[in-house]
Amino acid sequence: MNDFQFQNPTKIIFGKDQIKKLADEIPANAKVLMLYGGGSIKSNGIYNQVTEALSKFEVHEMGGIPPNPEYEVLIKALDIIKEKNITYLLAVGGGSVIDGTKFISAAAVYDGDSPWDLITRQKPVTDGMPFGTVLTLPATGSEMNSGSVITRREMKLKLPIGGPGLFPKFSILDPQVVYSIPQRQIANGLADAFTHVLEQYTTYPAQALLQDRFAEGILQTLVEIAPAIMKDNNDYDAAANFMWSCTMALNGLIQKGVPTDWSIHAIGHELTALYNIDHARTLAIITKSLYTYNLETKKEKLAQMAERVWGVTEGDTQEKARAAINHIEDFYQSLGIKTKLSEYTEDYRGTAEFIAERFTERGMTGIGENKNLAPDDVAKIVEMSY
Amino acid sequence: MNDFQFQNPTKIIFGKDQIKKLADEIPANAKVLMLYGGGSIKSNGIYNQVTEALSKFEVHEMGGIPPNPEYEVLIKALDIIKEKNITYLLAVGGGSVIDGTKFISAAAVYDGDSPWDLITRQKPVTDGMPFGTVLTLPATGSEMNSGSVITRREMKLKLPIGGPGLFPKFSILDPQVVYSIPQRQIANGLADAFTHVLEQYTTYPAQALLQDRFAEGILQTLVEIAPAIMKDNNDYDAAANFMWSCTMALNGLIQKGVPTDWSIHAIGHELTALYNIDHARTLAIITKSLYTYNLETKKEKLAQMAERVWGVTEGDTQEKARAAINHIEDFYQSLGIKTKLSEYTEDYRGTAEFIAERFTERGMTGIGENKNLAPDDVAKIVEMSY
Repeated sequence: MNDFQFQNPTKIIFGKDQIKKLADEIPANAKVLMLYGGGSIKSNGIYNQVTEALSKFEVHEMGGIPPNPEYEVLIKALDIIKEKNITYLLAVGGGSVIDGTKFISAAAVYDGDSPWDLITRQKPVTDGMPFGTVLTLPATGSEMNSGSVITRREMKLKLPIGGPGLFPKFSILDPQVVYSIPQRQIANGLADAFTHVLEQYTTYPAQALLQDRFAEGILQTLVEIAPAIMKDNNDYDAAANFMWSCTMALNGLIQKGVPTDWSIHAIGHELTALYNIDHARTLAIITKSLYTYNLETKKEKLAQMAERVWGVTEGDTQEKARAAINHIEDFYQSLGIKTKLSEYTEDYRGTAEFIAERFTERGMTGIGENKNLAPDDVAKIVEMSY
Repeated sequence: MNDFQFQNPTKIIFGKDQIKKLADEIPANAKVLMLYGGGSIKSNGIYNQVTEALSKFEVHEMGGIPPNPEYEVLIKALDIIKEKNITYLLAVGGGSVIDGTKFISAAAVYDGDSPWDLITRQKPVTDGMPFGTVLTLPATGSEMNSGSVITRREMKLKLPIGGPGLFPKFSILDPQVVYSIPQRQIANGLADAFTHVLEQYTTYPAQALLQDRFAEGILQTLVEIAPAIMKDNNDYDAAANFMWSCTMALNGLIQKGVPTDWSIHAIGHELTALYNIDHARTLAIITKSLYTYNLETKKEKLAQMAERVWGVTEGDTQEKARAAINHIEDFYQSLGIKTKLSEYTEDYRGTAEFIAERFTERGMTGIGENKNLAPDDVAKIVEMSY
C-alpha cells in the first residue's frame, strides 16, 4: 500500500425530503448566491423546495451554468458576488453546476490579476468562499470532493482546478431527485461513476486489499442496480444506491494508497472539447481501447475484476482480463451507450492525430499509472476507438 | 436505505515514517499535553519519534492511562491542563488512550459542575479542546471517530461519551507500529474490528447495497490478512491492511443508512467491568450466542455474509446463517481467542442474572437493532456463552 493522506470534511445529508434542512446548514446572516443550470430545477420542483427552505435568507440567483461549465459564463457570477456582497454560494444541480460553483468559490476570494490564473497555475486551491450543494444528478461525485473541471470554449480547453479549500461545506442528497432525471442522463451517471472507479482500480496490484474491495463493491452495486434504475427511475432504493455509489466513487476514499490512471478522462475530455459528446460517453468510447492497448500492464487487476465483479472463473489471467474488458463494454451498451467514436460523429477521421498533437503542444510527456503513454500511444488508442 | 447524515473531518496521515509530520499538524503556538498509556511507547521508539517531531513545541506529558480508561485517572489531566495552560492534546496510544483523550478534550472546555455530568447527561458533545492522535495499536477505530467509552471502576460502569466536537483533528497511522505489538493484542485488534463490522452489518436487509459491500469488504480483508499478520507482524502490507481495516470498521461510514445492533458490545462491556476480560475477547464470547439466539431475525444477513465472505454455496438461508456463525467462531479461535466465558473465569455462574439485573436497574428496555432484547433475553444469551 502506498502512503497517503485523506481528509474529507463535507457533511452529507442523505435521504427523503432533506432539502428542507438547508436553512440549518447556512450561517444565519449569510447572503446567498444560488447557482443552477438550464432550469430543469424549476420544472421538477427542486427550485421551489430550495427557495422555500431559504425563505429567511437574502438569496440572489444565477441560472444558466452550462454542461461542461464555461469560464466565460462563470466569471459573470463574480460581478453579482461583488455587487450584492454575497457571502455563501449554493450549487443546485449536477456535476457541472457544482464544478462551476467551486471555480466561482475560488475566484471570489482570489486577489490575483485574473481568475484564469487559478486554472493555469495548477496549484491546489486552499481558500474559497464557503458553499453547499443540493445534488440533482448523481454522476460526478463533485458533491463530496474538492475537484472541478472547467471549460474554456474559445481555447477548446477543459482543465482541472481543485484543492482542500474547495470541499462543499455540506451536500444534500435526496434520491427522489432521480425520479425526474431523463434516462439518458441516468445512463451517463452510471457510466461516469463506473469509470471513476475503473480509473482508480484498473492499474496494477498495490497490496491495498481494502481499497480493492471497496472499489469492487461500488462496481458490483452499479452493475446490480443499473437494470432497476434504467427500467424505473421511481424505484427509491435503486435511486438511493445509485446516488450513494456515485458519491463514493469519487470522494477520495478508494484512490488512497493506490496508483491511479485517469488517462481515460484525459483523452475523453478532448472528445468533449472537440465534438461536445457527453462526458460519460467519451469515457465509454475510450475505455475498451485503452485497456486493450495496456493489457499487459493492467491484466492482473482486470482479471481480479472479472473474478470478483462478474464471477468469471474460466481462463488464465490474460483471458480473464479480456473477459473483464468485454463485460465493461457490455455494461456500457446495456445502458444504451455507444462505445465507438464513429457512432457519435462522421467527422472522426484525424481525431487521433489531432489529440496527440494537442497533448504534445501542452508538453504532455506521459499519462496513465505508469506515466508512459506518450502522445503516439494516445493516437493509437483513439484510433482503436473509431 | 435509511436516511442518514455523515461527516468525518479527521485528517488521516497514513504510511511509513509519518510521525515526523506531527509538527505540521499542530498550531505553531500550541502548548501540548501528550497522553499515553503504560509506557510501551518508550521501549518501542515511538515516544522518541514523537518528542523529536515536537522539539519546537512546549510539551507536557501524562502517562499511565490504563486499558479501559478510568475516569479517576483521566480527571488528573485537567489539573495539568489548567496549570500549564495547555491548548492542544496529543494521544499517543491505542483505543484506550484515544478514548481517554476524547473525554479529557470534552472535560477541558466543560463549564458545568463536574466532568462526570458529561457522561451521565448522554448528550452529544459539541465542543472539545483540539487534539490529534498517533495510533500505536490498530483495533478500535477511535482514531477516526468521535466516540469514546469511559470506565468508572468503583461503580463497575463502562459508559459512552461522544459527539461531533470529539473527532481528532488528525491521526497519524504508521503501520510499522504493528511490528512491536504482542501477538495477543494483534489478535484482539483483529477481533475488535471484525466485531465492529458485525454490529453494523448483521441485522436485517435494509436495501443498502453499497454499505453491505463495504462491510463485507472489511470482513474479507480481515479474514485474508489475519494469518499473515498473526504469523509475522513485520509484514508491512499485512500491517497496513490490518490498520486501515480497523479504522474503516468504525469511522461511521458503514453504519450510515442501515440499522445497527451493538448489543454484543453492550453485553461485552459488562464482562470487562466484572472480570476485566480484554474488550475484544468479551465480544468473541458473546457473538455466537447472540447470533444463535437471534437467528430468525438475522438469518438473511448471516446467510449473505456466509455466501460473500466465506463463499458458502450449500444449504438454505437458515443453514447458511448457521454456517456464518460457525465461520465467525472459527475466525476468533484461529486468532487464539477463546469463545466461552468459562475459559476466562471459574466464577462465571450467576453472571447472566447479574448482568440482567444491572440492565434492569439502568432502565434498559430493549437492545439490538429491533430494540427487543429485554434483560431476560440478555440473561439467556449470557448463559449460552458460559
